Order: sequence, then C-alpha cells, then structure tokens
Amino acid sequence: MTRLNDSVGIVTTQYVDFDVELQLESGRLLGPLTLAYETYGTLSASADNAILVCHAWTGDAHAAGRYDPEDRKPGWWDGMIGPGKVLDTDRYFVICSNVIGSCQGSTGPASLNPRTGKPYNLSFPVLMVRDMVRAQKLLIDHLGIETLLAVIGGSMGAMQSLEWGIHYPERVRSVIPIAGTGRTSPMAIALNALARQAIYNDPSWRKGNYRPEHPPVDGFALARAVGHISFLSDASMQLKFGRRFSARDGMFDFFGQFEIERYLEYNGGNFVGRFDTNAFLYLAKALDLYDVAWNFDSREDALRNLRCPSLWFAFSSDWLYTPAQTEEVVAALRTLGQPVSYHLIESDYGHDSFLVEPEKFTHYIVEFLDRLR
Amino acid sequence: MTRLNDSVGIVTTQYVDFDVELQLESGRLLGPLTLAYETYGTLSASADNAILVCHAWTGDAHAAGRYDPEDRKPGWWDGMIGPGKVLDTDRYFVICSNVIGSCQGSTGPASLNPRTGKPYNLSFPVLMVRDMVRAQKLLIDHLGIETLLAVIGGSMGAMQSLEWGIHYPERVRSVIPIAGTGRTSPMAIALNALARQAIYNDPSWRKGNYRPEHPPVDGFALARAVGHISFLSDASMQLKFGRRFSARDGMFDFFGQFEIERYLEYNGGNFVGRFDTNAFLYLAKALDLYDVAWNFDSREDALRNLRCPSLWFAFSSDWLYTPAQTEEVVAALRTLGQPVSYHLIESDYGHDSFLVEPEKFTHYIVEFLDRLR
Repeated sequence: MTRLNDSVGIVTTQYVDFDVELQLESGRLLGPLTLAYETYGTLSASADNAILVCHAWTGDAHAAGRYDPEDRKPGWWDGMIGPGKVLDTDRYFVICSNVIGSCQGSTGPASLNPRTGKPYNLSFPVLMVRDMVRAQKLLIDHLGIETLLAVIGGSMGAMQSLEWGIHYPERVRSVIPIAGTGRTSPMAIALNALARQAIYNDPSWRKGNYRPEHPPVDGFALARAVGHISFLSDASMQLKFGRRFSARDGMFDFFGQFEIERYLEYNGGNFVGRFDTNAFLYLAKALDLYDVAWNFDSREDALRNLRCPSLWFAFSSDWLYTPAQTEEVVAALRTLGQPVSYHLIESDYGHDSFLVEPEKFTHYIVEFLDRLR
Repeated sequence: MTRLNDSVGIVTTQYVDFDVELQLESGRLLGPLTLAYETYGTLSASADNAILVCHAWTGDAHAAGRYDPEDRKPGWWDGMIGPGKVLDTDRYFVICSNVIGSCQGSTGPASLNPRTGKPYNLSFPVLMVRDMVRAQKLLIDHLGIETLLAVIGGSMGAMQSLEWGIHYPERVRSVIPIAGTGRTSPMAIALNALARQAIYNDPSWRKGNYRPEHPPVDGFALARAVGHISFLSDASMQLKFGRRFSARDGMFDFFGQFEIERYLEYNGGNFVGRFDTNAFLYLAKALDLYDVAWNFDSREDALRNLRCPSLWFAFSSDWLYTPAQTEEVVAALRTLGQPVSYHLIESDYGHDSFLVEPEKFTHYIVEFLDRLR
C-alpha cells in the first residue's frame, strides 16, 4: 500500500567536482565540472536499487525532503519520493542531480570559468540534453553504481531518461519518460523564441553580461510567463481563473487585469529572484535542439539502442509536448519490437499534469518497478 | 459558377466624419468620429443587397481591389470579394470599414483629440467590440441602408457580426461569424497579456506617449510574434518550417535560429511600420473583454435577440478560438430554436484557416446568401 505522508526528512544538497574535460555534442569541451545532487534511501550492497530522477527545465537536485525543520516547501517531487511512496526510499536509492547548464549548483553559464576567473555568460557552450546525461553519468560512476534500476523524469526529464536508455543501454534497466517528446515541435521552439526575445529586448540583459545583482527583471519575468502559459491548458485556466476580472481594477481601466494576467505577472516576477537568466536561455536552447535522432541516421536507428523496457506517459491536454509526439516514439518502439508500455492520461492540467495529478498515473509506475525487481 | 480571377479593380478608401458623441459601453463619450471605409459593387435601388464585411484585429477597410495598377497587394479578402466571387460584386454591394480604436483611417488612440489638439494615446477610452459596431451603424445609416443582407467576418470580425445581429436585429437579415467565439478564453487573454507586457517592457513605449517616429519597435515586434503564434497551429508550423535550422547560423551558435524563429522575427519587425502600437493594445483589450453576454443576464438572454439566420464556421486546428467555443454558441442558439447552421472545417492552418483556405467553406456561404434573396 502506497503511503503518501512520509517524508525522506531533512536532506542536504551535495556537490562533487570532476576534473574532466567533457566533450560535448557541439565538439566543444567543458570542464572542470561541479554537479549538485541529492540522494534519498540507501544503496543496496549489490548496488541494484538505484533510481535516477531527472528534473525539468527550471528544476533542481532538491527533489524530496526539506532542508531544515522550518523549511516550508519540500523538494519538487516530494509527493513521489519517500518511504512507502511511489519511489519508495525504503526500497530504492533515489538520486537527483542538477543538470549542467543550469544554475542550481551544477556548472552553468553563471559559473566561473576557471581559465578567465569570470562567469562564462555567453561563452558557455551550447548544450544538448545528451550532454546533460553525459555529465550525470560521471556522477553515477562516482557513486559506484554500475546499473540504474530506472531513469525517470517529466518534460526535459523525460528527454534525459530516453537519452540514458539509448546512450548507456548497458547501464540502465528501464526508463520512464513522462510528458516527453522524441523531438521538440516548431510550436515549442516558437514559444521559446518568444521567451528569448523577451530577454534580449531587456536593456539590462546586456548580451548576457548583466551583473548578477541587476538581472533583466522585466524581460525574464515575461519569458517565464511565456513558459507558464505553455505548461497550462485552456481547461486548467478556465478552472482556475475563468474570465474573472481582478478586483483591484475596473474593467474599463486601460491597465486593468484579468486574474489570469495578474497570476502570470506575479509568477513571472517571483521566478526572477530564483533562477539565472542565462541558464534559462541555455536550457531553452537544449530543449529546442532536442531530437532523439540527432547524430543517428533516423529516429528508428536511435531507438534501436533502447533495449530496456520503457514506460511512457502523455497527458490529454498537453499542447506543448502533445500525446501525438509521445505516440510517435512509442509506435516506433513497437515496430522495432522493443518492450514498451504507454498510457495516455486524461487530465486538464496541460503539460504540468505530471506535477499536478501524479495520482492518475503513479500506480502504473509502482507495478512497473515491481516487475523489474 | 464562382469565378476566382476577377477583381473589383482600382478602389479608393473613403472617409466620413460624424459630429457625434458616441456613448460607449464604459459610459465614456467618444466624438467626433471619422470612419474609413470602402465599398465594392452597386447598391440596388431598394438598398437590399448590402453586405458588411468586418475585419480582424489588425485589418483595415481595404478588403478588396488595388489602390493603383502598380499596387502589388490587393485587399485582405480579395479572394472573397469581386465579380463572380463569393461576395459577388455583380450582385452585392459590399462595405468594409476600419473599426474605431484602430489606426487605419478611423478614429483611434493615435488620432488627435480635438479638445487638446494632441493624440489621445492612453486617454483614449477602452472600447468593446459592441462600440465598434455602434460606430459602424453610423456609417450604414449614412449610406442610406436600412437593412444589411448579411454581416460577415472572421475572428474579431465574427464578434462584430454577432453583435450586429444581437443589437440591431431589425437592421440585419443574416450574420456569418467565422472562427469566432462567444467570449474569449483565459488562454486568449493570457496570450494577449504577453503581447501587452512585451510592449510595456519597451522603454520607448513611454506609457503610450512614444513619438510616432520612434515607436517601441522591439516590444511591438515581439507582441506581434505572440499573436502570430496564436494564429498558427503546430501542424501548420510543421508543414511550413518543421525543425529546419536557418542556414545562416550554426546549430551550436547561441544566437542561431530555427526557421520558425527567423520567420516570427521577420514578420514581427515588418509589422511595426504599418500599425500603431497603442491601437494594437486597445484592440487587444476589446478582444479580451469580448463576451456576448456582457450587459445581459446570460448568454441565452443575449442570443435570444439574434432573430436572423446565422451561419457559423470553426476550424479544427484553431486553438485560439477553438471549435468548442463556437459550438457552445451554436448549441445555445439551437436550444433557443433560432435558425442556425454550423460547419466545422478540417484545416491545419489554425486560427488563420479562414484566410488561408477559404475554398474549404465558401460554397456554404454562396448557398446561404442565395437562399436569402
């Protein structure tokens, strides 16, 4: 029986430095590297119970637990990870690490370039999701784990899961991509293009050379609002905001706002203080470039390397990474005879459904993991 | 037989001044008013063959024909209006006027306020679509037309058609709303909020007091790009751009662009020279505020006033004003026993389908108009 109340308790983010020069898909080198990560549960003596959780665009290594007893907010997937939960820390050793290119402890554009002593900013190399996974593998090696029981994640985390399965087939026993895609669509790219342009238009951005204490606040908040819309759905906005007008303003006030606008503005503004603008841009770029077929002859050629069982989820109201995009990959895997399960989950919460309504799909994950052991 | 090649020929935009104080939905007064309009064909002796065409957000009175023989681009619905065309100018007298609040010849925020001798800018009153229709009625009166045979339009034009039918039932024999909605959704409002914020973020906007020769170019281009995305669909972007990378740039260049981005940037930039930023904002506001039930007890109460036959179209890939939104209105009209026809048109071109693939639905319009005469 899945318990939902138990927490992994107080956790600490750990950091590990790798004195490497990682060769990236672009041909450029990146190093040395720092990776921030957290672990929950205990690695078994045979190291066969490790599950890697991969985070989405603006996520971080803090997937579960709290930093201290006063901490109001637990990790971003706390409902999923803990004793008796879906990723049961009484049974599994769960790892989450911040991706490279981000700003939550792992090496990214805001990190100091050891060769110049200054932040990389736009001299940071353009990354692909595959590069993130390559860096994660350093961590898995470091932790002494030969084989991951599962790699799981939503959105950009789904991409990482798939890349793990394809590029390190001998290191992965299963992958669980949730609300993912085999390649980002032009619609998703177009939305990211709006976000980029919103930042470029902000004079404070200074081609990425803003001072950390003076980030491009207005442009970045707007960029975040673009993302926010793409994570929601018309139905979820109807449920939450409808056409309600903000009480403060008159309907015929030029600057009057509907509640949905006020919400977007508030959330965009909130976000600015807790994420680095350049990191946001580099990760957006990695999302845009994502195509499982990259450097293969075809998608089928890439997917042929995924030899482990995979469990896929898509959400009916997700218009960013649409069910059709997941279904393309699943169909290709079926044609190749690969072991694959897929569930289309009815949910009104758009792309964010995987965070908002986990109870609609987690039982499939429990069963899937049980069968692996 | 519908001919598609004949043009209405050389046309001239006309202007008419009304020395009125138009009472707006907001309670504010607006006047005097200028309306820009064009007409095609000849008004019959009994004035019973007039069709009013209503334009969309950034449209204008120039719906058909060319201004001079060298004119490369005809009016925005030239494929629909002309001798032998759907709106057959051998039979019908077709009128199109620029809405108030716009900047294409009719009174809008860039017009001079006669009381101050300066442009209105943000002192211009917030308008609703109903106010646009109220101003159009002045023109129809001025042209000596007691009854319009039809009022037709797409998008914001669909809203105007419906408002005509509801507010002047004795003056309208039919309405043809295309790709419309009974009320804009929170998703549509959210997208407009992005566009607004993009403009507000531009220091050149100066709270609407930019000099006409120094408009907020960057913010306005971005605002237009937001709109552009919402008029397209994932499928149409796939068809037109796919994931093709712009030849100029390397994939691993930070500023490298996919073709879809380049296209959005180019089109946004192009638009800035031909539309006024404040007018764009006022019309966006009117779209957001649109709700057929406004000032009625309910939608049904509003729709009860639509006594003429109505012909509705929605497009399968339109995610801005979704088919479901049209279907809500159509269902309500049916319940009320009103004469209503509805066609869901399969098209990949999103909201823009009504401009891109008219051949998919125009035969229904021809038949509908034939039955009216």
